[in-house]
Amino acid sequence: MNETILKQVLNQVKEGKLSIDEAMIQFRDFEYKELDFAKIDNHRQLRTGYPEVIFGQGKANEHLLSIVEYMNQRENNILVTRTTAEVYELVKGIVPDAVFDPLARTITIRKVSTQKPESHIAVVSAGTSDMPVTLEAVRTAEIFDNEVRVYNDVGVAGIHRFYDKLGEIKKARVIVVVAGMEGALPSIVGGVVDKPVIAVPTSVGYGASFGGLSALLGMLTSCASGVSVVNIDNGFGAGYLASMINKL
Amino acid sequence: MNETILKQVLNQVKEGKLSIDEAMIQFRDFEYKELDFAKIDNHRQLRTGYPEVIFGQGKANEHLLSIVEYMNQRENNILVTRTTAEVYELVKGIVPDAVFDPLARTITIRKVSTQKPESHIAVVSAGTSDMPVTLEAVRTAEIFDNEVRVYNDVGVAGIHRFYDKLGEIKKARVIVVVAGMEGALPSIVGGVVDKPVIAVPTSVGYGASFGGLSALLGMLTSCASGVSVVNIDNGFGAGYLASMINKL
Amino acid sequence: MNETILKQVLNQVKEGKLSIDEAMIQFRDFEYKELDFAKIDNHRQLRTGYPEVIFGQGKANEHLLSIVEYMNQRENNILVTRTTAEVYELVKGIVPDAVFDPLARTITIRKVSTQKPESHIAVVSAGTSDMPVTLEAVRTAEIFDNEVRVYNDVGVAGIHRFYDKLGEIKKARVIVVVAGMEGALPSIVGGVVDKPVIAVPTSVGYGASFGGLSALLGMLTSCASGVSVVNIDNGFGAGYLASMINKL
Amino acid sequence: MNETILKQVLNQVKEGKLSIDEAMIQFRDFEYKELDFAKIDNHRQLRTGYPEVIFGQGKANEHLLSIVEYMNQRENNILVTRTTAEVYELVKGIVPDAVFDPLARTITIRKVSTQKPESHIAVVSAGTSDMPVTLEAVRTAEIFDNEVRVYNDVGVAGIHRFYDKLGEIKKARVIVVVAGMEGALPSIVGGVVDKPVIAVPTSVGYGASFGGLSALLGMLTSCASGVSVVNIDNGFGAGYLASMINKL
Amino acid sequence: MNETILKQVLNQVKEGKLSIDEAMIQFRDFEYKELDFAKIDNHRQLRTGYPEVIFGQGKANEHLLSIVEYMNQRENNILVTRTTAEVYELVKGIVPDAVFDPLARTITIRKVSTQKPESHIAVVSAGTSDMPVTLEAVRTAEIFDNEVRVYNDVGVAGIHRFYDKLGEIKKARVIVVVAGMEGALPSIVGGVVDKPVIAVPTSVGYGASFGGLSALLGMLTSCASGVSVVNIDNGFGAGYLASMINKL
Amino acid sequence: MNETILKQVLNQVKEGKLSIDEAMIQFRDFEYKELDFAKIDNHRQLRTGYPEVIFGQGKANEHLLSIVEYMNQRENNILVTRTTAEVYELVKGIVPDAVFDPLARTITIRKVSTQKPESHIAVVSAGTSDMPVTLEAVRTAEIFDNEVRVYNDVGVAGIHRFYDKLGEIKKARVIVVVAGMEGALPSIVGGVVDKPVIAVPTSVGYGASFGGLSALLGMLTSCASGVSVVNIDNGFGAGYLASMINKL
Amino acid sequence: MNETILKQVLNQVKEGKLSIDEAMIQFRDFEYKELDFAKIDNHRQLRTGYPEVIFGQGKANEHLLSIVEYMNQRENNILVTRTTAEVYELVKGIVPDAVFDPLARTITIRKVSTQKPESHIAVVSAGTSDMPVTLEAVRTAEIFDNEVRVYNDVGVAGIHRFYDKLGEIKKARVIVVVAGMEGALPSIVGGVVDKPVIAVPTSVGYGASFGGLSALLGMLTSCASGVSVVNIDNGFGAGYLASMINKL
Amino acid sequence: MNETILKQVLNQVKEGKLSIDEAMIQFRDFEYKELDFAKIDNHRQLRTGYPEVIFGQGKANEHLLSIVEYMNQRENNILVTRTTAEVYELVKGIVPDAVFDPLARTITIRKVSTQKPESHIAVVSAGTSDMPVTLEAVRTAEIFDNEVRVYNDVGVAGIHRFYDKLGEIKKARVIVVVAGMEGALPSIVGGVVDKPVIAVPTSVGYGASFGGLSALLGMLTSCASGVSVVNIDNGFGAGYLASMINKL
Repeated sequence: MNETILKQVLNQVKEGKLSIDEAMIQFRDFEYKELDFAKIDNHRQLRTGYPEVIFGQGKANEHLLSIVEYMNQRENNILVTRTTAEVYELVKGIVPDAVFDPLARTITIRKVSTQKPESHIAVVSAGTSDMPVTLEAVRTAEIFDNEVRVYNDVGVAGIHRFYDKLGEIKKARVIVVVAGMEGALPSIVGGVVDKPVIAVPTSVGYGASFGGLSALLGMLTSCASGVSVVNIDNGFGAGYLASMINKL
Repeated sequence: MNETILKQVLNQVKEGKLSIDEAMIQFRDFEYKELDFAKIDNHRQLRTGYPEVIFGQGKANEHLLSIVEYMNQRENNILVTRTTAEVYELVKGIVPDAVFDPLARTITIRKVSTQKPESHIAVVSAGTSDMPVTLEAVRTAEIFDNEVRVYNDVGVAGIHRFYDKLGEIKKARVIVVVAGMEGALPSIVGGVVDKPVIAVPTSVGYGASFGGLSALLGMLTSCASGVSVVNIDNGFGAGYLASMINKL
Repeated sequence: MNETILKQVLNQVKEGKLSIDEAMIQFRDFEYKELDFAKIDNHRQLRTGYPEVIFGQGKANEHLLSIVEYMNQRENNILVTRTTAEVYELVKGIVPDAVFDPLARTITIRKVSTQKPESHIAVVSAGTSDMPVTLEAVRTAEIFDNEVRVYNDVGVAGIHRFYDKLGEIKKARVIVVVAGMEGALPSIVGGVVDKPVIAVPTSVGYGASFGGLSALLGMLTSCASGVSVVNIDNGFGAGYLASMINKL
Repeated sequence: MNETILKQVLNQVKEGKLSIDEAMIQFRDFEYKELDFAKIDNHRQLRTGYPEVIFGQGKANEHLLSIVEYMNQRENNILVTRTTAEVYELVKGIVPDAVFDPLARTITIRKVSTQKPESHIAVVSAGTSDMPVTLEAVRTAEIFDNEVRVYNDVGVAGIHRFYDKLGEIKKARVIVVVAGMEGALPSIVGGVVDKPVIAVPTSVGYGASFGGLSALLGMLTSCASGVSVVNIDNGFGAGYLASMINKL
Repeated sequence: MNETILKQVLNQVKEGKLSIDEAMIQFRDFEYKELDFAKIDNHRQLRTGYPEVIFGQGKANEHLLSIVEYMNQRENNILVTRTTAEVYELVKGIVPDAVFDPLARTITIRKVSTQKPESHIAVVSAGTSDMPVTLEAVRTAEIFDNEVRVYNDVGVAGIHRFYDKLGEIKKARVIVVVAGMEGALPSIVGGVVDKPVIAVPTSVGYGASFGGLSALLGMLTSCASGVSVVNIDNGFGAGYLASMINKL
Repeated sequence: MNETILKQVLNQVKEGKLSIDEAMIQFRDFEYKELDFAKIDNHRQLRTGYPEVIFGQGKANEHLLSIVEYMNQRENNILVTRTTAEVYELVKGIVPDAVFDPLARTITIRKVSTQKPESHIAVVSAGTSDMPVTLEAVRTAEIFDNEVRVYNDVGVAGIHRFYDKLGEIKKARVIVVVAGMEGALPSIVGGVVDKPVIAVPTSVGYGASFGGLSALLGMLTSCASGVSVVNIDNGFGAGYLASMINKL
Repeated sequence: MNETILKQVLNQVKEGKLSIDEAMIQFRDFEYKELDFAKIDNHRQLRTGYPEVIFGQGKANEHLLSIVEYMNQRENNILVTRTTAEVYELVKGIVPDAVFDPLARTITIRKVSTQKPESHIAVVSAGTSDMPVTLEAVRTAEIFDNEVRVYNDVGVAGIHRFYDKLGEIKKARVIVVVAGMEGALPSIVGGVVDKPVIAVPTSVGYGASFGGLSALLGMLTSCASGVSVVNIDNGFGAGYLASMINKL
Repeated sequence: MNETILKQVLNQVKEGKLSIDEAMIQFRDFEYKELDFAKIDNHRQLRTGYPEVIFGQGKANEHLLSIVEYMNQRENNILVTRTTAEVYELVKGIVPDAVFDPLARTITIRKVSTQKPESHIAVVSAGTSDMPVTLEAVRTAEIFDNEVRVYNDVGVAGIHRFYDKLGEIKKARVIVVVAGMEGALPSIVGGVVDKPVIAVPTSVGYGASFGGLSALLGMLTSCASGVSVVNIDNGFGAGYLASMINKL
């Protein structure tokens, strides 16, 4: 809890505007909604500037639906990641204008739109097999009201395809680079741009790629500066951070 | 090579202002300085907005000195990382006002100062043993003309020390978080701020920390959003990226 | 075999109350029941204070049923872990009042109840996906006659949810903390309580969580003291140990 | 920060006994002592029942001495772990009655003694090479006012040595088991006692022991119940937790 | 090719009893049978004393059947490991008296019986889940004409079950010990017998057992002498080696 | 982009034969074909001497078909790897004379044939289970117009089978060696031939082979010289490189 | 404790020849000698047929000397492994006829000689860098009264050196094979002999040999049968087991 | 032993030109020279076209000198790798014109020169820290009579330095690419050349480069074709293989 809020409540208590018990409730209530099986973090938007996102994988259908139902009563956009067509059918029963992207595996529900920043985000991918992760990043950045431009299939096996797009890519404020296998693309990008590069290793590959480990290690040890890394296949995390930087 | 430069040279060639051979040299010469043992990347500042930095570790003394000597003739600030007092004595022979920080293991030579951004960078560290990495981040961000505020020893074992500083930390534009062992601090920070968090795992720890692996994996799988990760002990990389974001 | 029992048998032999052969049988018979495929450890309760528990995973149905059948003739409570609804249907055929918890994946059969200790156990979980492991710990501690209080979904991404419950959590005699991904919650808990913390890493996560490895390493290298760790997803082990400590 | 303290301060503020600013200072000041390079966690004893301990490894001598000096002014016992004879000579200059155990690598300074619990702690080690870790656990439990009984060199290669001591070992309230190589001893102990077992893997071994990894994995996957594990070579952590359980 | 055979052929060539071409064929033909997809190693029995065994896993049904068919024409016993009931049905079509053990996953075809050695092999297993590996070792040793005695479910969680059988186990000439999880049983056995112990780690376990890695490392770093290790789940290899030692 | 092409375009621009815009298009157009979801690398044959190959695994059927359809319009042979019978049925609808090898999991479409080199490639495999990888190498080398000779099932368990073929194998210009499990065969081959050996580790094995890791590490640390290694199961990569060397 | 001994003591107790207390002492005293820091396992020779061996590495000099001094009073041969010339100088002060092998790093003290078996042990090594491990195996087998024949430097890089010795090697009763790097030699040996092969991986190598891991995994996954493996660099363990098998 | 040689000896035996014993000696003697501690592989040049090379690391000085002395009597060039200035001083005592390259850590002794091939080898390195490995490759290829051209410090952080040299690099017959950290350079090179690329990962880097593992995995999973990999830091292996390919 930050100092400003603490002081404010203390002031109200001092001035008798708030009883001790009310202060206690205040602290507790505006922070999360207690469901049976979860505590929805309402305070999050205040704290981090972003509403809570629903990580769909491994959640029971009825749990996920309850959360969507609760969040749908509030004026927040909703993003469900790592979800399925089956879940989407259920969600549509509650929120008919929910949108499903089967490749990105996301459900998005847009209820409000804020002013987009003038700058935009570039999402660059090495190969077509990286597309689910790429699109998860795109949908995430979009639901948080960013313009996103996508540059697919420009990996190092035919790096001229990247150089051809480089002039455009450099116009972005922040660049997400998605790559599997040896994960070399972020090093190339980081060496020729003057913008932050968010590298996303993917589990694309086989054998010595060990589920994305080769790409992950390659990106972490990149000899280019200005590159940071998120978890393997974490398109959401990259889109979220890119949005955060784009809005600074 | 980006399109703008290509077009420009093509235009000059077309207009006869540049012979083919001159065009070829042009491409070659403004890009790097060929030393016997290295190719100093002069083009880098143009390309990425930052001059080349000297990674001191594993470089022969005479090589490192040649590079410093060459770079010293140009109007760039110079940063040497992972260096030693012994190297510093040699560098002082060439550049008397070089500054050595023994804890950060950096040599800095300031020749120009640009206008600092109004915003600043916060560097937050979990423990006193993380100090070399913390200070490497600080010295890096400073040589690139950023204001840096440091919050040491606020790790999760006594997390109230962090909360006490949180109000201040939130004022930064971008936050570097340095931690070893279980590397939990970036998750805490990422959960309560609305700024990009750059997590730096350190090799501080023993046993199952496996040289920083535990902190690295912990940071990559952080359940907080807005967190990205650089290599183990890579204070320089974090400072560089923080500077890049602070100047957006 | 401990000294007390050895001495006692020796005494009986000396006094002629026991022949050599009877002594040999004594040693052998009260220790385990030989089935065709297994040796049920009857001596266990005497030795460790707890009856043998049936680890359901990977056991053939007929083997598991034989064991339940045999144990059901004795006045012990029975706990089957890592089991399924299908097995439950079979068990109900033998023991109609067996109880199945599908989320915890446990079958419990209560035949006796001992006096619960006055103190209780807190089980704290980071996220809703950790629930199967959390509930396995809960059901285990309950069948061993402990009061258990559960605090779900209070992980570090929204750590205020934890602090809100901290006052209550501190009232427990021993605290089980269940978390996946970076597994940071035990460090937080361990830093603010004066009770033993049993950390349970879960395999919740993806990519660099490597099946629970990130949480496991994080908990082992926790900078908080008073924290010890059990195997990944080992809710049973944590509940068992918590019961043992709660009853000291 | 726990609720009780929060309420108390709120009450004082309400009653005008405390100004807002004083309340803020209160929160801040009783929690830690700010040194140049560290924040000493004074609040810790209140929070966890134990004073802060100094982890000596990797700390600069002058830093370590400053911390000892500061802590020496307060009425707390002091424990320095992973330290050296050289540091001890320096500490003796400040605190003449400091005691050094070269095998345990600890410095202890006893200033107060509280009533020991009637129960005691057993520390059991597999081999003589485990002695530094064993003794670190012993010195830790002792400085926190526990009776400790040690059983050395009773590992599984000659397991009759263990069984011979088993009668005695079972009298302890909690048992620390220290072992390297395959780390099998905690499984044996856990299978025959009815007390919590804290397993400490050590880095003793070579080849496939991979710095203690074999013992660590063996202890985590122990088929005995009631066993939990701390970090490789973490004698301090085991002694601390054992003390915590012994005093419940 | 060993010297004796070489000399013999050279002698026949010298004496004109063998032409050069015949000598070449000799070398080639008695060594293997060339099928389309495989080269059956007929020379093996001469070379190593054992006929080739068929590793069933991953072999196409028609390939496996061809091999069985070819081998069935020779007077060798046949062992197929890692096979299935489906394959067995096919094999029975060719060799009606083939015998299938569904738990061991073996097919055996006995055509000749040699004199068994007077000594026997003990196969000791830690738990009932280790049974498939245990039985693979048993069936292997039996087809090679050894007497095998089995001691199931005597693992370290209730080690008295092992001690009860120890007197019998020590009568064997060589002891196979099968265990998963922490794999501690071979250390216990190796410490109390004067016979070679062949340790077989199994993939039984979960979490930090990492597919048998914990048991494997534990057995390799065993502090007991006289213990050697085969691959994870390699019951066949243990049975084969035990037979070899039993027949010395 | 290489210098020759750059100079050529510059010359045309200088001589007015090419406008700036035409030059720009030139650079862009002959390099790749932009599909919706991919950028087909037409420039590749010019650049590396080989047309782009389609890695079938993980590609959506409609994407794969579009690529085949586009490439079929050009006079290139086509190779699809890691594909299935189901995909083949679809491809046959477009290209009736496409050929499927179910063991190699390849589709090949031959449209042109160039002169084969006089020398040939040997592909040597350790066991019959390595056949899918072996055949992928064979089909790859064949579609690039090489003569390939295959030597199956000559692994180290019966190494005389290899020596028998050695005279023939040595006649090849380059040798591909495919092996799983301990991957020892390339060491044997490398020690007795004077030709480059391309080692392909396979994922054949179980337990400590860890998905091909044992074979991979074995081949990388081979004490024979002249051996280099490709990714686990990468028959395509070995066939491609062998073709490249065979055609030097 | 085995049944025979138990019965015998029971008999003596029954017959009044032994008081309860004497029986207790009997159990305790003939089993180990309690030193301050260790429990010397006197019972071991009775139990396993071999006296305890001193693992020198990591033992304090005075501890090691005390153990040697104690053991020297009994009529056992003594073997110290992993020791140094410095320790040897100290040991010579107590036992003048102790023998040091600097390459094997062993001290041996021969006090009794038993009849050697007629069969012998072959120790085969891949390279000269494996010599310390090779000789540790040799010295171990010799002190236990075995004839040992050594075949050095016959690794797979020039495998004809091995085949040349094969005729001799096959005459041994049991074969120890020592190899680093890819560790392929045991597979070759195991494929052509009919004797048990004990494989010893060594840490010889660099890079991807990862301290002996490549050789270890290679040997564990060997496709030859009759091969078992001991820990990396464990020459002692191999020599011990070879002796055990040679004496069966 | 290959067939040709076998036949030839058989013929001589048949024709009575060779006695059986002489034939046996023939087989044995021309194959290796037996020293006390090693078997020098004279047959190697015949077999693989290359004389044996001395791997200096871990060899005792007197052993290494004996080998050099023996080899110096024959008309072979000599290459010692991984050696030191100290060894060089000793070698100079025997062979005064031996040449030492302190950066490459090689000693070379040239006694004969064969005709170099017309084609040459390119050795390309990513950074100046890779120089020891780079030069080891260069010295190896040179002693085997190849022309080598070196391109240093052209790594992906400033990839324009590489493109500038690409025109030249493509003229080589085979290309060795040396890189540490993320090891991305071979992917870039492999994507733009039509020659075999031999990738050498180096241990240059820190943290998540794990001693060269990141570069190794990156190169193995390279999405460029025509790339194969040798062991970490294995400059010798790359130079040897490049020579082999260059001379095809």
